[in-house]
Amino acid sequence: MQVQDIPILRYGEANRLSVRTRDEDNAELGPNDVRIAVKYSGINFADVQMRLGQYYDAPPRPFVPGYEVSGVVDAVGSEVERYSIGDEVVAGTYFGGYTSTLVVPAQQVFPLPASTSLAEGAALPVNFFTAYCALFEMGRVREGDRVLIECATGGVGTLAVQMARYAGAEVIGLTTSPDKKAYIEALGARAMTLDEFYADESAANFDFILNASGGRDVKKQMNRLGLCGRIVCIGINASVRDGKKSTLRLLWTALRTPIIPVLALFNKNRGVFGFNGLTVLQDPVWVERLTGKLALIDEMGLRPHVDKIFPAADVAEAHRFLETKQARGKVLIGW
Amino acid sequence: MQVQDIPILRYGEANRLSVRTRDEDNAELGPNDVRIAVKYSGINFADVQMRLGQYYDAPPRPFVPGYEVSGVVDAVGSEVERYSIGDEVVAGTYFGGYTSTLVVPAQQVFPLPASTSLAEGAALPVNFFTAYCALFEMGRVREGDRVLIECATGGVGTLAVQMARYAGAEVIGLTTSPDKKAYIEALGARAMTLDEFYADESAANFDFILNASGGRDVKKQMNRLGLCGRIVCIGINASVRDGKKSTLRLLWTALRTPIIPVLALFNKNRGVFGFNGLTVLQDPVWVERLTGKLALIDEMGLRPHVDKIFPAADVAEAHRFLETKQARGKVLIGW
Repeated sequence: MQVQDIPILRYGEANRLSVRTRDEDNAELGPNDVRIAVKYSGINFADVQMRLGQYYDAPPRPFVPGYEVSGVVDAVGSEVERYSIGDEVVAGTYFGGYTSTLVVPAQQVFPLPASTSLAEGAALPVNFFTAYCALFEMGRVREGDRVLIECATGGVGTLAVQMARYAGAEVIGLTTSPDKKAYIEALGARAMTLDEFYADESAANFDFILNASGGRDVKKQMNRLGLCGRIVCIGINASVRDGKKSTLRLLWTALRTPIIPVLALFNKNRGVFGFNGLTVLQDPVWVERLTGKLALIDEMGLRPHVDKIFPAADVAEAHRFLETKQARGKVLIGW
Repeated sequence: MQVQDIPILRYGEANRLSVRTRDEDNAELGPNDVRIAVKYSGINFADVQMRLGQYYDAPPRPFVPGYEVSGVVDAVGSEVERYSIGDEVVAGTYFGGYTSTLVVPAQQVFPLPASTSLAEGAALPVNFFTAYCALFEMGRVREGDRVLIECATGGVGTLAVQMARYAGAEVIGLTTSPDKKAYIEALGARAMTLDEFYADESAANFDFILNASGGRDVKKQMNRLGLCGRIVCIGINASVRDGKKSTLRLLWTALRTPIIPVLALFNKNRGVFGFNGLTVLQDPVWVERLTGKLALIDEMGLRPHVDKIFPAADVAEAHRFLETKQARGKVLIGW
């Protein structure tokens, strides 16, 4: 059969990405595998870092990036009972998601939540798992908490704001641009620009901070934690600006991402977590545990916000849209 | 009136401590103060570090150490309504607890819990606040968690084991000596010696670790955390051995207490907290919040375990008992 995918062949700017068509042996599925006719592939910021050669967990080139898809089951292995041909599903995959046809073990596949469209489904795995783990597994956010969500308009941040509000927390959401504040407020949070936040020292005493930018913002935000508060760091987005590869900027951000002496934490009475939501997809126990939590999507009335869907042929444009921080919510490519 | 107290005049071994009797002006109480005829003063490991000159938060010499007392109210300020002369109470105090008469603001005073004796009461403030904050404010331990309590026979550890069990966690308690294992098991935990623990790599995948020793054990124990797990460090006891002052050992322990690059936390998906339970006593908002939690003492059926009560005149012996790690639970001095 013919399969289309989007490999990373050489590191560099977005226009190096394009769709490749290849014939794939219609090999037997493993007994526990599911084959999905992919409709949408989610784009993550990590994909941009990968494309720039800045993501050290990535496989050697050439490889196909992508962690999440939605689509329709079009074949199942002999032992798969939970899914049938024609089922609408979502799947997480450790690389390989930028493809029109994905084969994955059944345990990485989830039925599409009832309240979610197929496009919204492709916005779920990485963002939901990251937001869920950061808020409820690491931070264990609860009613009455004061919560700060740094990238409140991004894919994870959008869900995180809604989930923290659902848990009964008081939420401040940050954004780089004033014109995105209304979007954050519509999710039930107080919105501030980063500049407003750093200028206003009364925005402090947080029980939980979700940091996505890394660098020196980590330390600046830690100083806004209350007694027994925690910061969860989920990335170092600050290393990419305007989609240009900049090893210097990556190094600079990494160097400014703080090194925390445990002894110093004693007197501040606080904690710091690092989270890589993508590695969760490597752990079968956690994939299963978190899959069970997908029921919360309906329960919490979460709407993963899909900002824009690009045809697969326009993948370069999709990357540019994300890396220039225009996105409010998820960016997808459609097959 | 005559007051007895135990000041730290010179740093050094335990035998430098002794009771001093002095006349105190019977000054007016502040309108919000409570005066307590102290029956028991709690001894903490921090007091030993202070005596050795190793506790940098301590005031300049001479000063009276001690963070917690129990006793009977014998005078109240004009605006105190909650307490009357004759009430049995517990109080936390930021230094000054090794005394026969303590004057403190009413908000640092708590009624003695119904199920607790006066002696047990003096074992509560620091240990309960530390265990409570570490487990339920920082760690937010919950049902089904895998929990490791390092110093399970100490004052904090004894409470922490009971509280974690009450919360529905599966608990392993560590001790340095095999003959204390039965004591830990009686609290409902699985007991291991430190040697057994480090030799058994299957004792892993913890959601929460309470570390009291600092030094390189922090890193060794961190490697036993599961995905999204956290370690809470509450001290660097490892710096004191046999009550001898050893600046070298303090430095050595401090140097081996890890410095955690936040970037490294990403890939391990874990968190680290530092907690200094004593500084909580400086924060009126938290003192009030935690005082409200003292109802849990009765609710959880917690018994702070008082190991031994020494007469005030034997304070040197009491310190030696604690610093040579003979204690199973709290050590008090009685007035």
